[in-house]
Amino acid sequence: MKLLLINPNISDSVSELIRSEAQRSASPGTEIEVLTAPFGVAYIETRFESLLGAYATAQLAAEHHRRFDAIVVAAFGDPGLTALREALPMPVTGLTEAALASAHLLGQRFSIIAISQRIQAWYREVVDSYGFGSRLASIRALDRPLASIGAVQDEHAQALKVLAERAVDEDGADVIVLAGAPLAGLARSLKGQLPAPVVDGVSSAVRHAETLVALQAGKAQRGSFAPPPQKPNRGLPPAIEALLRRQ
Amino acid sequence: MKLLLINPNISDSVSELIRSEAQRSASPGTEIEVLTAPFGVAYIETRFESLLGAYATAQLAAEHHRRFDAIVVAAFGDPGLTALREALPMPVTGLTEAALASAHLLGQRFSIIAISQRIQAWYREVVDSYGFGSRLASIRALDRPLASIGAVQDEHAQALKVLAERAVDEDGADVIVLAGAPLAGLARSLKGQLPAPVVDGVSSAVRHAETLVALQAGKAQRGSFAPPPQKPNRGLPPAIEALLRRQ
Amino acid sequence: MKLLLINPNISDSVSELIRSEAQRSASPGTEIEVLTAPFGVAYIETRFESLLGAYATAQLAAEHHRRFDAIVVAAFGDPGLTALREALPMPVTGLTEAALASAHLLGQRFSIIAISQRIQAWYREVVDSYGFGSRLASIRALDRPLASIGAVQDEHAQALKVLAERAVDEDGADVIVLAGAPLAGLARSLKGQLPAPVVDGVSSAVRHAETLVALQAGKAQRGSFAPPPQKPNRGLPPAIEALLRRQ
Amino acid sequence: MKLLLINPNISDSVSELIRSEAQRSASPGTEIEVLTAPFGVAYIETRFESLLGAYATAQLAAEHHRRFDAIVVAAFGDPGLTALREALPMPVTGLTEAALASAHLLGQRFSIIAISQRIQAWYREVVDSYGFGSRLASIRALDRPLASIGAVQDEHAQALKVLAERAVDEDGADVIVLAGAPLAGLARSLKGQLPAPVVDGVSSAVRHAETLVALQAGKAQRGSFAPPPQKPNRGLPPAIEALLRRQ
Amino acid sequence: MKLLLINPNISDSVSELIRSEAQRSASPGTEIEVLTAPFGVAYIETRFESLLGAYATAQLAAEHHRRFDAIVVAAFGDPGLTALREALPMPVTGLTEAALASAHLLGQRFSIIAISQRIQAWYREVVDSYGFGSRLASIRALDRPLASIGAVQDEHAQALKVLAERAVDEDGADVIVLAGAPLAGLARSLKGQLPAPVVDGVSSAVRHAETLVALQAGKAQRGSFAPPPQKPNRGLPPAIEALLRRQ
Amino acid sequence: MKLLLINPNISDSVSELIRSEAQRSASPGTEIEVLTAPFGVAYIETRFESLLGAYATAQLAAEHHRRFDAIVVAAFGDPGLTALREALPMPVTGLTEAALASAHLLGQRFSIIAISQRIQAWYREVVDSYGFGSRLASIRALDRPLASIGAVQDEHAQALKVLAERAVDEDGADVIVLAGAPLAGLARSLKGQLPAPVVDGVSSAVRHAETLVALQAGKAQRGSFAPPPQKPNRGLPPAIEALLRRQ
Repeated sequence: MKLLLINPNISDSVSELIRSEAQRSASPGTEIEVLTAPFGVAYIETRFESLLGAYATAQLAAEHHRRFDAIVVAAFGDPGLTALREALPMPVTGLTEAALASAHLLGQRFSIIAISQRIQAWYREVVDSYGFGSRLASIRALDRPLASIGAVQDEHAQALKVLAERAVDEDGADVIVLAGAPLAGLARSLKGQLPAPVVDGVSSAVRHAETLVALQAGKAQRGSFAPPPQKPNRGLPPAIEALLRRQ
Repeated sequence: MKLLLINPNISDSVSELIRSEAQRSASPGTEIEVLTAPFGVAYIETRFESLLGAYATAQLAAEHHRRFDAIVVAAFGDPGLTALREALPMPVTGLTEAALASAHLLGQRFSIIAISQRIQAWYREVVDSYGFGSRLASIRALDRPLASIGAVQDEHAQALKVLAERAVDEDGADVIVLAGAPLAGLARSLKGQLPAPVVDGVSSAVRHAETLVALQAGKAQRGSFAPPPQKPNRGLPPAIEALLRRQ
Repeated sequence: MKLLLINPNISDSVSELIRSEAQRSASPGTEIEVLTAPFGVAYIETRFESLLGAYATAQLAAEHHRRFDAIVVAAFGDPGLTALREALPMPVTGLTEAALASAHLLGQRFSIIAISQRIQAWYREVVDSYGFGSRLASIRALDRPLASIGAVQDEHAQALKVLAERAVDEDGADVIVLAGAPLAGLARSLKGQLPAPVVDGVSSAVRHAETLVALQAGKAQRGSFAPPPQKPNRGLPPAIEALLRRQ
Repeated sequence: MKLLLINPNISDSVSELIRSEAQRSASPGTEIEVLTAPFGVAYIETRFESLLGAYATAQLAAEHHRRFDAIVVAAFGDPGLTALREALPMPVTGLTEAALASAHLLGQRFSIIAISQRIQAWYREVVDSYGFGSRLASIRALDRPLASIGAVQDEHAQALKVLAERAVDEDGADVIVLAGAPLAGLARSLKGQLPAPVVDGVSSAVRHAETLVALQAGKAQRGSFAPPPQKPNRGLPPAIEALLRRQ
Repeated sequence: MKLLLINPNISDSVSELIRSEAQRSASPGTEIEVLTAPFGVAYIETRFESLLGAYATAQLAAEHHRRFDAIVVAAFGDPGLTALREALPMPVTGLTEAALASAHLLGQRFSIIAISQRIQAWYREVVDSYGFGSRLASIRALDRPLASIGAVQDEHAQALKVLAERAVDEDGADVIVLAGAPLAGLARSLKGQLPAPVVDGVSSAVRHAETLVALQAGKAQRGSFAPPPQKPNRGLPPAIEALLRRQ
Repeated sequence: MKLLLINPNISDSVSELIRSEAQRSASPGTEIEVLTAPFGVAYIETRFESLLGAYATAQLAAEHHRRFDAIVVAAFGDPGLTALREALPMPVTGLTEAALASAHLLGQRFSIIAISQRIQAWYREVVDSYGFGSRLASIRALDRPLASIGAVQDEHAQALKVLAERAVDEDGADVIVLAGAPLAGLARSLKGQLPAPVVDGVSSAVRHAETLVALQAGKAQRGSFAPPPQKPNRGLPPAIEALLRRQ
């Protein structure tokens, strides 16, 4: 089985974190490939940055999906995920969607631990869009500027751990979601140090993508995730144009 | 006052409908300019098409916004609207957001009359994202293929009117929202023929955009609609890159 | 265009604040008239006081509406608004409804800054009744007794500003709503001093009322905002009786 | 124990139905008094009519409450109920609130069977205002004009029964609420003929009012149901003025 | 009238508190009998303990219900309540359901004061399952270990009172619910000392059970509270087997 | 890896269906064991039957869990699942929870296709308890009596397929959930015949249980899924008593 993880950000250091955690998480026989957005920003915190990341992700997916059994949008916030689910013939998931699936299977209420204050509103809207608002105990975030997005978990591991403990003890979280590709792998290293189950987006996405491939639930032929209807288009990147045409 | 309406679709015929209705709706002294997406699809019905339209809209807005007092995303579904609200220094609204504001001021529950079955799921998600789900009485849509997107209201006026009447009498709608730029102006021509107030996205957006300019509520300096934080970026269209840099 | 603003409270000083802000906000050519409730309380903070104000508003509206193009219920909390929307042939809005429409067009979540602790529960119920509960970040209120309702913004401007900043920084508000007719005009004088867009009920109501007149969406003939059905009545003030009879 | 039931409508025939059912429902030793609104309409179906009924109810309650242990607002829709709960020193309930309490104790989801199509929107808003929207399976209503409000249950008993059966079999109702004072007593005569428990507003209100008197839970001294704060007032009916002053 | 209260816990001291408060609360002529679970835990705080208590309650109810007019599940959290409502021919209520009915009749928002931190999540889920989530202002709980479950109100009365005051002043509660059978009777002794109406589960349940018997609303014949359909079963306690067979 | 699936019903024929589908779904190296409830009913359709099944499941889990890496409650409706998650040291999931996780990863809205009319209310409450109510497009169910619970999919495959198609075309479902252990395996045989992805509870539960074992998220030490606190108990089955004691 071959999985493609697309980093919607331009950060190669984060792609490397994603690749490492994905490979550690994958079942035997699963091959992992990670692509980094050719354009965009260092890390997505806002709706506008997500719009940019979604388009970059769509382009990469359109160009490369044919070689893979499933696609993972590898940024928390899942830029472009539900759009790609319509257009692509194989299963697609994203770090937030996959982390919420894991949290759903582990407890009732969860908290998201995030890397910046600014990122919280966008995360909340994404969680709400999946209908998980009533299970969100809280979002807690670092409040200091990030020196380096690729080294955030090294620099802030202790602060992130404290946020997680407060989420359990003060906010009523049953499960901790460590949010954002820059934290990929942190759940693994904090294992046993937190008072509640800890969920990581990358490992969740890899495992759930494998499950979707295994379950073979089928691609929508009707309903809102069927491929977009045929209609005139203009000026699109060739791979996207081909994706729209071939349905 | 100068308003820019951006049609996120490639249809010049729809841009013409938008322009006509916008000019009829504008206050004296308001200048209207309509731009058509240089790339994308004929009309947006799905999440994937909306992703494409959002990016095209962002590019046009980044290139042209400086000459305008307010921007309107002129497709029902508002592709890219909340993203642009972060990045642009002036007020931005969209056809759905504006139509919902009008409906909110006219009654308690509203129904959306749409041009295709497929478009309904996307509309529902947009309405829900604005927190208006509890006020949505129903979405009703044409169920026949559209011969021409620019002529949909001519061909289907009677069918659309029947859908609107059913929404009032069977679904409990207090207000009818005629959805989609291809229906721009239809509310005006149906005036007096429907049993409940009728709302049009284009005229609502023009008037509410004028109001936002007049109220001068101020651009967010903090909170989730402040400009995206400064950070490295790469490979972006120059206008978008300039937009991110100048904040 | 002629707008009638009805102050459901007996405070002439507040009516004067309303009149000033309404005139500053109106488009050229819009005439403003403000009427003060002939009976009631100094300012409404509770459901019972709102019941009294609603009835006074209904009487004034029944007596005077014929000379106007639109009516504004000029107290935050909108006493009697949805009732008057049924009975009157022209558009009606209120300070809360209009402020929420503005907030909806400016951001995702908003906080209400109010003049007393007691008033908060009533405001929350009104916001919920419009289905805006999920967008309400918080209500924050002054906690000191008001020496004079007509001078509250002079005495408490600094405290109100601090509440607004906390709403943005601690509660996640994208937009600040300065609530209550006694704060009419404060948004204008705080312009540029707050970290997020600021909305005022009076200016919002004046502008949105103008929009409703311009859009000519039509009066409901069926549905829940059609005029009340003809039926026996007894003992009503003549203007209200006439209103019920003439439909 | 003495209970006052206030009919917010002017219909003496309905007051008689209320009185009969209240007396049949009351515990031994409970005295029932029913007052009819001195002004208003024959029966309330809309928000505007409810505004009128609420004011009439407030006047009657202000004048007469001192002789009673508890007050019942005896119209489905509870005009003025939450307002009176603030102002009066004794327990107050209403037909809708009491019927919902009974339905809550008898099953999970309930349907309301109503006497006119028009009345449904108002009922729905009242149910929603109590937070019971998620338990409302449906509202079903007669669709023929009512010849006489005092004789509706005689004329329409069979049609009402059919609506109730459909609510159980098609809408998933566990409990049937026969809504509206004009149906007072119908639940009693349909007993054994319906497939699910049947709730009547008047008998529920009488019994729950007795319970509130027995439980002696205490009048709110703080919070949103404490008496309205002392402040200037003007032009109010003497009994209402006295009610505001004495707190 | 004969009421059976079933304590789903094994604590005889709590059964004694329940019996005392039930007898003080009952109407003249109502006989009270309290049974204690023959197996289970000292007091239920978690979902697993509730599962055990539900089964014990079901067994006791199956064995003893025939002699009674109504049954009360006498633990806050109502283990097994909705299940028993299907299977038993007479009315059944529980401490939480009954306390919420009382709170609903006394104010808009309520807070629950509980005896342990751990118990809060379970209580919240039960409140949500009844659709009362939007009316729950807060749950506040003792944070010290309980020396003796039968003496919790003697040892902690002052702390519980402080929690109740904070719920009113900080959380916006209109009504205080003293939760859990171990607090039975505390509302009575705190009467007049709290700033808002106080509700007790046992007295509420006794009174509401009496009301259900008086209203004679009828047992569901169809819908989700009709008796479970006839079907093969095996290995059940004889009383439960008889209950399933006789429907 | 060893998985235990507990059938909370007494039907050996259904256990056989569960076993077959579980074995077909499991990854290489996963061992499947299925246990059938020693007491209870043939198949659970109601809250009361679920109470019985939950207790039987708890007993089997308490006795046998030590030999397994994860436990699956193998009835749609998940009797006892959240309780067992507290008490057991390893991951636990259930057919509904797992099917919802799959549906969440495949689309936005889903419909449940069920085997009897009666079962719908219970399913709806379970879905709501997981916070998935806003994503539930509909529940549709067979309306004919079941001749044999073990043969339902053979007898009713065509009817179930029609229900699934209506769910997609009329209710807006993106994903079809075939509900109930008696339908285990049907998704596999309908593959390619339905217009939307199809989810099966057993295969979802097996795959997600494997994922939970692989992710090693950790057992809750604090929060609402920590083991129940130590306290006196009495009369419990020895395995359950041991489970409570050893934490």
